[in-house]
Amino acid sequence: MSKIYQHSTLAALMAKQMQGTTTIGELLEHGDTGIGTLEGVDGELIILDGEVYHADEFGNINHITDMETKTPFATVHFASDAANELALAPTDFAGLSDLQDQYAFKNNFASLRLHGDFKYVYVRAAPKSEAPYPSLLQVAQKQPTFTAENISGTIVGYFSPKLYQGTVAAGWHLHFLSDDHQFGGHLLETQTDDLSGTLESFSDFQIHLPIDDEDFRDHTPVLENLKQKIQSAEGGH
Amino acid sequence: MSKIYQHSTLAALMAKQMQGTTTIGELLEHGDTGIGTLEGVDGELIILDGEVYHADEFGNINHITDMETKTPFATVHFASDAANELALAPTDFAGLSDLQDQYAFKNNFASLRLHGDFKYVYVRAAPKSEAPYPSLLQVAQKQPTFTAENISGTIVGYFSPKLYQGTVAAGWHLHFLSDDHQFGGHLLETQTDDLSGTLESFSDFQIHLPIDDEDFRDHTPVLENLKQKIQSAEGGH
Repeated sequence: MSKIYQHSTLAALMAKQMQGTTTIGELLEHGDTGIGTLEGVDGELIILDGEVYHADEFGNINHITDMETKTPFATVHFASDAANELALAPTDFAGLSDLQDQYAFKNNFASLRLHGDFKYVYVRAAPKSEAPYPSLLQVAQKQPTFTAENISGTIVGYFSPKLYQGTVAAGWHLHFLSDDHQFGGHLLETQTDDLSGTLESFSDFQIHLPIDDEDFRDHTPVLENLKQKIQSAEGGH
Repeated sequence: MSKIYQHSTLAALMAKQMQGTTTIGELLEHGDTGIGTLEGVDGELIILDGEVYHADEFGNINHITDMETKTPFATVHFASDAANELALAPTDFAGLSDLQDQYAFKNNFASLRLHGDFKYVYVRAAPKSEAPYPSLLQVAQKQPTFTAENISGTIVGYFSPKLYQGTVAAGWHLHFLSDDHQFGGHLLETQTDDLSGTLESFSDFQIHLPIDDEDFRDHTPVLENLKQKIQSAEGGH
């Protein structure tokens, strides 16, 4: 059994459930690799080898070492020796997405981790909101973007099948962190040189819901047109 | 952490993935209580205290003791002392459904197990299909139903929030087994006397996908109008 562990759902973020409902320490008990955000949908997390990096809306990368730091939403897994080894010729975001067809996993969850040199990396970082929280759709309309050229770094993230749209943003959801820990965020576009890394398929998807949080427990999810709203909030990828 | 474990998805059944992709033995490693069906969507499983009963399309109840028996879809959990104890005045299916409002778990998964006397129990049992399999929608159009009066037995099943429609049939999904193991199936309607039992909320929902099964891995889920199709196949409950 190989498992992806997710704290909360994208639909809950869409419905303003941005309060921190677990800690980074608890999250790391379920994986050493992954992505997420902090309380208030504050920036983009990149989790590599058990270390947590935070790309904030100001273009800074913060190394999160306080295990009590809170998050409303994150996805992790334990990196495994069972992952497929990959070597990729220069490509762009669409070329990364093609890995779905190449490895034919339309009904599988998968993780991707790639390292190498990049000609161009275009990322965004969600701006932190304060309570009372807006919806994710409102946050998405004012997200700062950042560009880097000729940089080495790591892409990490997940592929989720369409059936799970709502609990996740279906398709690819990838974050980037530079080797020097000075640049990162949610990957929007890229031009890569040769990259190498791993692609892993998962048999299990575990969703952990913060049902002890009163706001989460009682919130009303907005399921009408959720797919369209997620695409507006999370982008075409 | 309290967890529901599900093998495969309702959308996969809708897309004809009815081949047995795990065994009863493997399933019982993840729970001692639950519901499901056998290969070919053959009848209705009722799992109580680690024992597996099978209500077939002919109105028989079979005690499944061969741990190699295969299933395409099932949901289980380990019964816990943390469950809420319930005592219910005489009611009907709508009254059981009202437990959702009473216990306010619109964003929680929950399990229900109730025992007592019943004035009336109306169930159905899915007829077994052979490969090449039809869709669940086709199966649903020819399901035998059975009625019992003045019978004692157990209701067991789950509540799933609307967000998870597709991976499950959202709402209540309840099965019935009589104390004498002579009558059972998927509960469609009932008139109960006093019942007592447990209602448990879960923080975690783990979906296990049979990605080593080639047909499952490569099938094309039909996501258009899935909600309407599930309601047609699974009924209003």
